[in-house]
Amino acid sequence: MPDTAAYEPTGRTVPTRSRERASYDRELVHGILDEGYVCHLGFVRDGAPVVLPTLYGRIGERLYVHGSTGSRPLRMTGKADTGLAVCLTVTHVDGLVLARSAFHHSINYRSVVVHGIAYEVTDPEERRTALDALVDQVVPGRSYDSRQANAKELAATAVIRLDLNEVSAKVRTGGPNDEPEDSALPHWTGVLPVVRGYGTPIPADDLDPSVELPGYLAVL
Amino acid sequence: MPDTAAYEPTGRTVPTRSRERASYDRELVHGILDEGYVCHLGFVRDGAPVVLPTLYGRIGERLYVHGSTGSRPLRMTGKADTGLAVCLTVTHVDGLVLARSAFHHSINYRSVVVHGIAYEVTDPEERRTALDALVDQVVPGRSYDSRQANAKELAATAVIRLDLNEVSAKVRTGGPNDEPEDSALPHWTGVLPVVRGYGTPIPADDLDPSVELPGYLAVL
Repeated sequence: MPDTAAYEPTGRTVPTRSRERASYDRELVHGILDEGYVCHLGFVRDGAPVVLPTLYGRIGERLYVHGSTGSRPLRMTGKADTGLAVCLTVTHVDGLVLARSAFHHSINYRSVVVHGIAYEVTDPEERRTALDALVDQVVPGRSYDSRQANAKELAATAVIRLDLNEVSAKVRTGGPNDEPEDSALPHWTGVLPVVRGYGTPIPADDLDPSVELPGYLAVL
Repeated sequence: MPDTAAYEPTGRTVPTRSRERASYDRELVHGILDEGYVCHLGFVRDGAPVVLPTLYGRIGERLYVHGSTGSRPLRMTGKADTGLAVCLTVTHVDGLVLARSAFHHSINYRSVVVHGIAYEVTDPEERRTALDALVDQVVPGRSYDSRQANAKELAATAVIRLDLNEVSAKVRTGGPNDEPEDSALPHWTGVLPVVRGYGTPIPADDLDPSVELPGYLAVL
């Protein structure tokens, strides 16, 4: 499939409602994924759902998640030849939508939901590339400005991969959708934008004062 | 159980690693929940995990989630006399932790994971209180300054409840934990605080200009 084609909708990526908010556009999906670094990873353990926040990195049509070889989802994936069924979700909140009616209150957001089977990555080169991607997803350029993992650290780290096949985005933008008959009500109505940013960097206690703040942090 | 007692740890709320980050303190859990309004709700559908972002509200030891009666998790809960097994997770990212080694990069965060069975709320009074809580979770005080749901809107809205019984928080704070032998490496190291806030409110196109911005928005 060419990289520009949309993802193929499936039974579980077509929502039962608000279908106009759903999208399978590859660029849109990539953009939402690339703006974040924390996902919520869902899997089934003893028949019950588990949802854990974790970091992720994207390389093309592959997402990577890492963790201690002792953590549950990574252990579960490594044990299973068949991989582990997961759902990986990334959400950005862009604004609070305040309507005149309680019912029409909403949130402007962009989210991506990925369904699929996660597999443990064993190829050493792919593991290294994935670990770099995980660092660079949080701070682009940082993997070049830190000590790479040594053999002991690599042995303690599990990496799992989830391919972007069954994927959908959901986006809400714009103002409130009040009922026409509510238009004369006296309540303030509109959108409160939600903004994200970074505060002043806090150097570690033992940082040599001659080490300057790198350019890739100054531009964040 | 008195409201001040800690939550009882269970097999699935005790992590396999980083146990020092786990807490069952009720006030800490409430504080993390009250600072947010978007959770990631996990459930199992046809044997596979599903994770969806959705709003929540807290009243004491109960969490509420709402949605269209046509949406999948709410339909699944309503159909089942036994309720629906869910995992509800709330995460705040507080900082990016940049270590000298790639391995020790981390995130300062606070998260709460709630396991349990969600039940549909059918009592009209509890439904109304829950819907107010959902609005006030996003903007405290807003439920008093909007038109309450009418019969038609109430009929279109499903509310589910999840009790806070099997609950844990996980918190990471502080600076990087680099290896002593890395201390002379030339990389900048420290924490980049992540800040959240609100932009300038954007009035709806049809807002009467004489309606002033309410005080509860001005203080956010």
